[in-house]
Amino acid sequence: MGNDVIIKSRVRLARNLNDYLFPHILGRTKSLELIEKVKEAFFESEDKFSEEFDFYKMEDMGEVMKLSLVEDHLISPDIVEKDDAAVIINKDRSVSIMINEEDHIRIQTMSDGLNLENAYETASRIDDILEEKLNYAFDIHLGYLTTCPINTGTGMKASVMMHLPALTSLKYMSQVHKVSAESGMKVRGIYGERTEALGNIYQLSNQLTLGKTENSIIEDITQVSEEIVSKELQARSMIQNTKGIEMEDQVYRALGILQNARVIDTKEAMKHLSSVKVGIEMGYIQNLNISDIDGLMIEIQPAHQSIMFELEEISNRDVNRAKYIRETFEKLKIGVMDSELQ
Amino acid sequence: MGNDVIIKSRVRLARNLNDYLFPHILGRTKSLELIEKVKEAFFESEDKFSEEFDFYKMEDMGEVMKLSLVEDHLISPDIVEKDDAAVIINKDRSVSIMINEEDHIRIQTMSDGLNLENAYETASRIDDILEEKLNYAFDIHLGYLTTCPINTGTGMKASVMMHLPALTSLKYMSQVHKVSAESGMKVRGIYGERTEALGNIYQLSNQLTLGKTENSIIEDITQVSEEIVSKELQARSMIQNTKGIEMEDQVYRALGILQNARVIDTKEAMKHLSSVKVGIEMGYIQNLNISDIDGLMIEIQPAHQSIMFELEEISNRDVNRAKYIRETFEKLKIGVMDSELQ
Repeated sequence: MGNDVIIKSRVRLARNLNDYLFPHILGRTKSLELIEKVKEAFFESEDKFSEEFDFYKMEDMGEVMKLSLVEDHLISPDIVEKDDAAVIINKDRSVSIMINEEDHIRIQTMSDGLNLENAYETASRIDDILEEKLNYAFDIHLGYLTTCPINTGTGMKASVMMHLPALTSLKYMSQVHKVSAESGMKVRGIYGERTEALGNIYQLSNQLTLGKTENSIIEDITQVSEEIVSKELQARSMIQNTKGIEMEDQVYRALGILQNARVIDTKEAMKHLSSVKVGIEMGYIQNLNISDIDGLMIEIQPAHQSIMFELEEISNRDVNRAKYIRETFEKLKIGVMDSELQ
Repeated sequence: MGNDVIIKSRVRLARNLNDYLFPHILGRTKSLELIEKVKEAFFESEDKFSEEFDFYKMEDMGEVMKLSLVEDHLISPDIVEKDDAAVIINKDRSVSIMINEEDHIRIQTMSDGLNLENAYETASRIDDILEEKLNYAFDIHLGYLTTCPINTGTGMKASVMMHLPALTSLKYMSQVHKVSAESGMKVRGIYGERTEALGNIYQLSNQLTLGKTENSIIEDITQVSEEIVSKELQARSMIQNTKGIEMEDQVYRALGILQNARVIDTKEAMKHLSSVKVGIEMGYIQNLNISDIDGLMIEIQPAHQSIMFELEEISNRDVNRAKYIRETFEKLKIGVMDSELQ
């Protein structure tokens, strides 16, 4: 249900080891020791799952590689600055294990669409592999102990990434925020700063992990997500029924601008990419894939653009972004062919 | 010089006959008699020029034909309503002779670019043909007598149609108005109402015809036109030098919107067509002709659109306009092909 509205589901498990201080006070020698210990526990497991993974020390990784992992949400911006940290990533880039980020171990898994069960299953499998050899810090009353108290309990954060242009446009997002908060969840924009949600992309996640089982967290988020998806689809139908031609107009103008602009900032580009996504989802645009647009949304972010064009001056960033978008659409072979005109 | 800036030159001569009241008080019988008299004088002349012309009574003409003649500036909106009027038009639609409009005879000639001499030469040739057989109302002191005193004298109005996007964008048009007024000329928008100049298209014309010879009027307008063209080209260079990429951006966004919009009003369409004209003139767009854009500027006017889609509801006019523009660009085979990307 609502595959187009929900882009990805994610699960993160925070784990720490007994006998080691938390990472921010651990020191280099012990940090490196811990990294080796986690690495061994994972790769020497009998579970053949580890064969799909690669290990990287942060200090050995190039800037571009780090950045692309951040933008794919496989590592956090925080770990990028740390020398005494490492990451284990699977080859299809849907699973990562960060070592010595805020906690000793953070297992992160992603699934396309609304599929938290699947993401949790994968995270649990890794958790089981690690637990076999490692001595987790666990309290019978509190659950898994974490550096930051807010994560103590299941140590789990589950989230879904959603595209909500119709609810945004009809000013229903404050209602979504309210309903989510009442269920102990939080909605925030993924791109942009503070309250902005560039490209109308939001993340819904649980706020607390204590006092709830993993399954109940997943069930709750799934249920609230489904409600939001249903509201978003209703809102889209309403817009389409009452002003379908204006919607189609917005979709095609967005496409025309993306294909032609010579200067474009992130904010405007995200707005138009969001419209193009809606256009594909509503069937106005036939010859383009949602996943290509999702990819562009990541690639046009300022940090990504800066690295891609690091030799250029910053003042050229909006020019390079416009060129990159035009070239991408050119590659995707989207003409302005108009089905009505064929 | 400045062929791209000056779209057309026009000359109009107002003439009246002795022995007939002015048209608005002439009455049907006399009006029809006068029409026959002018028709005979023209078509029975020894000058073979008349072979290129056709004669039409207004009351026999269909609405679509009338409208297209109005929008080509061959007849005035006023004559459309008159039954006792007629028009003689040449086959390439650059010359017309209106009979019983405001004056008994109005000779109108057009040339492409800045070429008032040529337009005046053609008008004089027709004037000579008619004068051979007709008894013009002429006063040795006042010159040609006309219905409205403002036209008395040479009876000539000379005008040039100019595209002035850079002067408009840099807010120099008030200066242009002032300079023109000081030289006894007037600048006004061609499309749009009152002070609006949709598509940045203006007409410069003489205000008075009394006390000046035809040649001095033409010389004066030509000289002022050349000054305005030179200022417009300077303004374009300035914009290109200081913010070339923004200019190119505006040109291509305009093209992208025209090729993709599903709903567009006259004002917005004219703005973007003006940008596309500049894009062609500045060399950003290679594969499109100025004349096709000039044509579109006429065809998307509300009256024209209403007639073209007379079976449709008025509320659909902006939708039909958008479709018509897309189809036209499709026919012109303008892809979004980007020369940089080839």
